[in-house]
Amino acid sequence: MRWLRYSVQGKIFTGYLKDEWLHAVEGAPWGDWQKINITHALTEVRIEVPVIPRTFYAAGLNYVKHIKEVAQSKGESAVIPGAADVGYRAVNALLQHDGDVIIPADAGEKIHYEAELVVVIGKEAKNISEKDALSCIFGYTIGNDVSERDWQKVDRTFFRSKNCDTFKPMGPWIDTDFKIQGAKTRVTVNNVETIEFDTDAMLFDIATFISRTSRYATLYPGDVMWMGTDGTSPNIKGGDVVEIEITGLGKLRNRFIKATA
Amino acid sequence: MRWLRYSVQGKIFTGYLKDEWLHAVEGAPWGDWQKINITHALTEVRIEVPVIPRTFYAAGLNYVKHIKEVAQSKGESAVIPGAADVGYRAVNALLQHDGDVIIPADAGEKIHYEAELVVVIGKEAKNISEKDALSCIFGYTIGNDVSERDWQKVDRTFFRSKNCDTFKPMGPWIDTDFKIQGAKTRVTVNNVETIEFDTDAMLFDIATFISRTSRYATLYPGDVMWMGTDGTSPNIKGGDVVEIEITGLGKLRNRFIKATA
Repeated sequence: MRWLRYSVQGKIFTGYLKDEWLHAVEGAPWGDWQKINITHALTEVRIEVPVIPRTFYAAGLNYVKHIKEVAQSKGESAVIPGAADVGYRAVNALLQHDGDVIIPADAGEKIHYEAELVVVIGKEAKNISEKDALSCIFGYTIGNDVSERDWQKVDRTFFRSKNCDTFKPMGPWIDTDFKIQGAKTRVTVNNVETIEFDTDAMLFDIATFISRTSRYATLYPGDVMWMGTDGTSPNIKGGDVVEIEITGLGKLRNRFIKATA
Repeated sequence: MRWLRYSVQGKIFTGYLKDEWLHAVEGAPWGDWQKINITHALTEVRIEVPVIPRTFYAAGLNYVKHIKEVAQSKGESAVIPGAADVGYRAVNALLQHDGDVIIPADAGEKIHYEAELVVVIGKEAKNISEKDALSCIFGYTIGNDVSERDWQKVDRTFFRSKNCDTFKPMGPWIDTDFKIQGAKTRVTVNNVETIEFDTDAMLFDIATFISRTSRYATLYPGDVMWMGTDGTSPNIKGGDVVEIEITGLGKLRNRFIKATA
């Protein structure tokens, strides 16, 4: 099943997709919801960010090729983390599918995408074991962890480098049937493929991340956990269009625009 | 005027305080609100976190004594930041006045408080000038940026060191009349004063932080910005009670409890 948040003339709905039609509901997809008598064609709505999380978790270094290439670009030797590296991002930065990523006027040239699988939590969880961890997942979507590498290097926090407005495209929908086994993450820039990697080639898997995070933080329905990326990105310029496809999850597409002042 | 979120038998209200009575309203304090016909005595409610922000901003190093003492504790020389050091925290960690801070079982001994003035945003702001920055403030409250220093040192992110559940007490209320001029921030541990400092002795003032943050992120009503702390904390143990008072804002009180497993 695919769940969307979408708007029609500025009014926001939550609904599920069936045969290219959106059926609006009242209530949260992961809770008690009732179908209401409103349908729209997928083509006539504006797709919105599929969920506004209370807390926005993000795995840091979680794919080996990414870790090696990042280290190489800094002239350092790669250090593989010994435990799941839990981080977090700021909600202001979320952007819908087909929205424009605005590169700030004072940003440098090293604007990079990071193609990520996103887990959407459906049940409250604290101190959940790895064995039970997947039971608190509602579904999956796609995220693009846009980063400004010069700021990431010099700033003491990831605020500017990763959390400028529009730096976190997420969507287009939440899919509750996704299976990670055999899934590929594929990125194109202006329709040219830049990378394809096995989505499940994670250093620490989803169950490990959920269990580890829940040792310190209560996960709530609607929270999201971004699972990290592999490889590195070319520099993305104003006018470029980045598309991220994950098998079974569809495609997240965003154009980049350079702000002029 | 003082605004609170509070609960009575599990039901949450927003209201303002007048002569020790809470008058409930519908709507947000910074928006169009209407008084509804429900009043409670302050003594009969449970005070809740005064606002659940969409984004939770936090100044990093913003008082000189804190910067010097942190550097000294690491055997390093102090480096004064050249620009406002914007960071952010995770919403899961918020805790109400009088709630218990739970120190995780696997935490080290260096559990520290950080007494902070908290700004609550009342108007949307993007690219706001320093001159106009204060106009988007709704009011002020008190925050305790509880930190686990061993994790802060070894982890790649502040997730565990600063964002465990209950590590961010905030409250007890939002005061719309607070004046920073002459205000003192005073901390006691088990009723013994550990520090008092001038609240406005910031390296970068509130207007600078708001303006700088809004260059990259849109501030929304209900967002909070924690303004940093001065000095350093003794190690806080299970059973200790930390109270933070800021002139004109009242007192934020929380007991610390060590988890056993």
